[in-house]
Amino acid sequence: MPPTQHRRSGHPIGERLTKLREAMRGVGVDAYLVPRTDRFQSGMIAPQDERLAWLTGFTGSAGCLAATTRSAALEVDGRYDVQARLQVCTEEIEILVGRQEKLPGWIAQSLPSGSSAGFDPWLHTRRDVRRIRKELYPNEIELRSVAGLVDRIWTDRPDAPMGTAYDYPIEHAGERREEKIERMTRELRKAGAKAAILTRPESIAWLLNIRGSDVDYLPIVQAYAVLADDCRVEIFTDPNKFDADLVNELKPFVRLRPFEIMPSALAELSGRTLVDSSSAPERIFELLEEHNVRVAEGADPCVKAKAIKNKIEIANHRTAQELDGIAVAKFLAWIDRSAATGAATEIEAAAELEQLRRSSGKLKGLSFATIAASGPHGAIIHYHPTAETNRRLEPGDLFLVDSGGQYLDGTTDITRTVAIGEPAQDQRNDYTYVLKGLIALSTAKWPPDRTGRDLDTIARYPLWHSGQDFEHGTGHGVGHFLGVHEGPQNISKRSTEPLVPGMIVSVEPGLYLEGRYGIRLENLALVVACLPASSDSHEFLRLETMTLAPFDRRLIDASKLSRDECHWLNQYHSSVLAKIGPHLAGTDLDWLEQACAAIR
Amino acid sequence: MPPTQHRRSGHPIGERLTKLREAMRGVGVDAYLVPRTDRFQSGMIAPQDERLAWLTGFTGSAGCLAATTRSAALEVDGRYDVQARLQVCTEEIEILVGRQEKLPGWIAQSLPSGSSAGFDPWLHTRRDVRRIRKELYPNEIELRSVAGLVDRIWTDRPDAPMGTAYDYPIEHAGERREEKIERMTRELRKAGAKAAILTRPESIAWLLNIRGSDVDYLPIVQAYAVLADDCRVEIFTDPNKFDADLVNELKPFVRLRPFEIMPSALAELSGRTLVDSSSAPERIFELLEEHNVRVAEGADPCVKAKAIKNKIEIANHRTAQELDGIAVAKFLAWIDRSAATGAATEIEAAAELEQLRRSSGKLKGLSFATIAASGPHGAIIHYHPTAETNRRLEPGDLFLVDSGGQYLDGTTDITRTVAIGEPAQDQRNDYTYVLKGLIALSTAKWPPDRTGRDLDTIARYPLWHSGQDFEHGTGHGVGHFLGVHEGPQNISKRSTEPLVPGMIVSVEPGLYLEGRYGIRLENLALVVACLPASSDSHEFLRLETMTLAPFDRRLIDASKLSRDECHWLNQYHSSVLAKIGPHLAGTDLDWLEQACAAIR
Repeated sequence: MPPTQHRRSGHPIGERLTKLREAMRGVGVDAYLVPRTDRFQSGMIAPQDERLAWLTGFTGSAGCLAATTRSAALEVDGRYDVQARLQVCTEEIEILVGRQEKLPGWIAQSLPSGSSAGFDPWLHTRRDVRRIRKELYPNEIELRSVAGLVDRIWTDRPDAPMGTAYDYPIEHAGERREEKIERMTRELRKAGAKAAILTRPESIAWLLNIRGSDVDYLPIVQAYAVLADDCRVEIFTDPNKFDADLVNELKPFVRLRPFEIMPSALAELSGRTLVDSSSAPERIFELLEEHNVRVAEGADPCVKAKAIKNKIEIANHRTAQELDGIAVAKFLAWIDRSAATGAATEIEAAAELEQLRRSSGKLKGLSFATIAASGPHGAIIHYHPTAETNRRLEPGDLFLVDSGGQYLDGTTDITRTVAIGEPAQDQRNDYTYVLKGLIALSTAKWPPDRTGRDLDTIARYPLWHSGQDFEHGTGHGVGHFLGVHEGPQNISKRSTEPLVPGMIVSVEPGLYLEGRYGIRLENLALVVACLPASSDSHEFLRLETMTLAPFDRRLIDASKLSRDECHWLNQYHSSVLAKIGPHLAGTDLDWLEQACAAIR
Repeated sequence: MPPTQHRRSGHPIGERLTKLREAMRGVGVDAYLVPRTDRFQSGMIAPQDERLAWLTGFTGSAGCLAATTRSAALEVDGRYDVQARLQVCTEEIEILVGRQEKLPGWIAQSLPSGSSAGFDPWLHTRRDVRRIRKELYPNEIELRSVAGLVDRIWTDRPDAPMGTAYDYPIEHAGERREEKIERMTRELRKAGAKAAILTRPESIAWLLNIRGSDVDYLPIVQAYAVLADDCRVEIFTDPNKFDADLVNELKPFVRLRPFEIMPSALAELSGRTLVDSSSAPERIFELLEEHNVRVAEGADPCVKAKAIKNKIEIANHRTAQELDGIAVAKFLAWIDRSAATGAATEIEAAAELEQLRRSSGKLKGLSFATIAASGPHGAIIHYHPTAETNRRLEPGDLFLVDSGGQYLDGTTDITRTVAIGEPAQDQRNDYTYVLKGLIALSTAKWPPDRTGRDLDTIARYPLWHSGQDFEHGTGHGVGHFLGVHEGPQNISKRSTEPLVPGMIVSVEPGLYLEGRYGIRLENLALVVACLPASSDSHEFLRLETMTLAPFDRRLIDASKLSRDECHWLNQYHSSVLAKIGPHLAGTDLDWLEQACAAIR
């Protein structure tokens, strides 16, 4: 555990909560919800949307605060349990561990019946609002739409981002924007709609083959769009982000309009309009209802289309993995050299890795803030080193690095855990269990009607066998030079979505022992169809591993691996050496050859 | 495949369908549903309830017919696909493979809007009726309650069963009836109800420690009951089934009333009444609504209580397994001796096994009709040999026997597949994959919040790896001298119920190659808590295998088993020999010693 003096770090939580409570009284609500998200329901948000961090000090990527006039609770998922308790003043704010399903119950317990709770309709989806309202209803607590309450008290709130938008050329996108638009209008006609409102910037970026730079880690343009069944697209954004060339390029299909007129522009919609209640903010529904626009609730058609990568995207993703693998191999070699001297800290290691990725000249940015966690920090699932927590890599530590790059060729995400010095036998045992889970899923075949949920068990089986488990999903979808997390697919106990060939998912079992160490091993993999083995057999799916980086042989207890597991590992290491080796030289190449040697 | 001349076997389907259609016209419905069940929603039904078999010739344990005035469809699940096509005239009746979710769509397609479809409200649960009504609604097809339409045309319908009811003594039940009644009234008060209507005979048998003999294979008394929160129980049944001693025994708690007065007796209910909409027939709800009784929909509290066996039931179940294992070992030895001569048929083998079970003097009956399936019959998942299909066991066959016994000590269910003569390599490969699935689940540990669905994958993983799968669940709950299938637990892709220590489940992966062979391996296992491995570890659950019978070593390719898998198998065979061996002698004992020898 990090030293306790880093807790609560002087964040002016009391003062800000007091202001929020005054504002609540001003609008007549007895509670208010502050989720960590923006109008796009994104996890990658601009500084002006860091309401939750500003208010509470909690900097995790997901969470929601509920404040009443007397008490407050912050709900975070299992990944952030430890971090929230470190960052937030727990005398002011109770920490709940859940996935935003516990707050309504907490509000119901905290308020007398007849009270009202407020929420910002830009920051909650319709589905969320329905769920919360349903839970508060039996307690006769009203849920009221109150936009922008935090923004009113946050006087020095940053401006909206003004990142440049740019064309994402066809040699990277693999499908022309007019084809995508045509394909998506067919989907919206199938859903019985004349138009669709797209509130996810990733959907718009994919649909129009544009990228942007409004937020860190996610190359999107903050925007909403309306797609009409005559293949016309209107984008609501700050048009100043688009230069003349791009405006010309888009002109045949797209009209750019200022974000501010979006509310009134919705009044122009005539026919049934498709809106995704799982991602569109409640405010969109309120506006459509005000304008008497008929709503067809249904999935944003771009989400699934975007998740299934085309051949060009897949080929380019392989290039991105090679670029990334070269940087990671050099980094792992550097760790081995510098760890021997005991000279590196977490922050220095993260900087070194970023510099190695940048040296390719192809990196557009990181795909998320690097997790570089040594020793006990590894057990904090989404730990990011700060000046206050920065820790030296010490002999006997496990060092967990979860990182990724954004390349025009694709988005990467990789985790490796390495031994600093000679590992202990319990570290080797645990690493080997996690590795066995990764191999089991990497070599699995399954019938197409099974979902991510069914696969989740496969990666956990060896860990369960050792009486252990990990409190996060086994895998998530990954975008193509877009979000490092994307749906609809994932591999977790909550997944109901079948995996489809062309989807890219992470495979990342882990193990976290609070105060001791964390282990996570993560590859990206492509869902592919198996060739049918015989006429009797079903059509099965499997994963093709895309990530190219060695696992730490010192942490593998080969006696615990089956022949098939050893075979997979040796084959994998051979292919890493064959693809990455030619780009290395000197001590880096020597290191990789040793790291990729057959295990047995 | 069996010879085609056995198809359709002269069943007078045309004539009976014509009569049903006349009756439909008589009551003014354009379609009618005929499910294979009784008023108790049971799969083990009396001859008078075999409406579906009488009408169509299909003798499987689950299925539903829908007939319109022009067409008819029989929906059966994957287990019965082949059998239904063999037994039913497919020119008259289309076969749909599903779990009663396809018939509403079929009706909607077959009838014009404005039509009406009838169903018997005694034979469908409220949940079923809601689901079907919801699906027919968009097509403007009305679903109408029409009781007993088949019974009117089935002129020589058998009488209701009159099996004797008897006391199930405390040394077998392990908990006194007054304790169970008290415990269940607490549950119904928790559900906010004054009384509960129990429509499952298994619940009543468990609650009152009685057993009966109304139907084959399931030792229950056909009855409904009302449990009131003052611990009074009324049973609606034929009181003549109960002798004076039993009536006296029950008197302090139970009042026996004729089944016929049940409909009017429901009018006596005053407070909120708990009814299980997943198992109670629609007719119960109709009656309660007629009498203005307030309904609390909720689970029959006996179902889960009954599934969690007490210590005495568990100890007795071990005795039942020993009794059963002795018979099965003698049977497998007999197969090996007689198969060499080529003298045995499926029916003879099933008879021999039943006789060996009876020779213990403890058998109260079989727990279901024995599946004795040689060669290609093994691929018919629920095949039962008949005079017409009976087949000789031939060298080169696989012989699949799925059977079980009802003992006062418990209910058993076991499947073994054995080689007749020298097996082929593909048979050995497939057998080994199935065995690996059984071992994987038998040795699994899992966190308590996981459900049967998560475990289902574990037993399939090795088969999936070979590009194969099986079209039935991996396991089902098993009662204590009650139903061989019981809920709420099961292990399948539909299971949402966590397994709880004390539950007994089957573990039965399989593989079915139509026209060639079938393999199924089934043990019963008890859900138990693991001792925590360390303070870091979660509390995990695991299975303790209860069934005692060897697997066919000739069919196991030991080179495909891991060291851990071999170890499990050798340990299992050692324990079979230790527990069953002392009860065998001569050639049977020699056979068992050889069958249980270490594999490697």
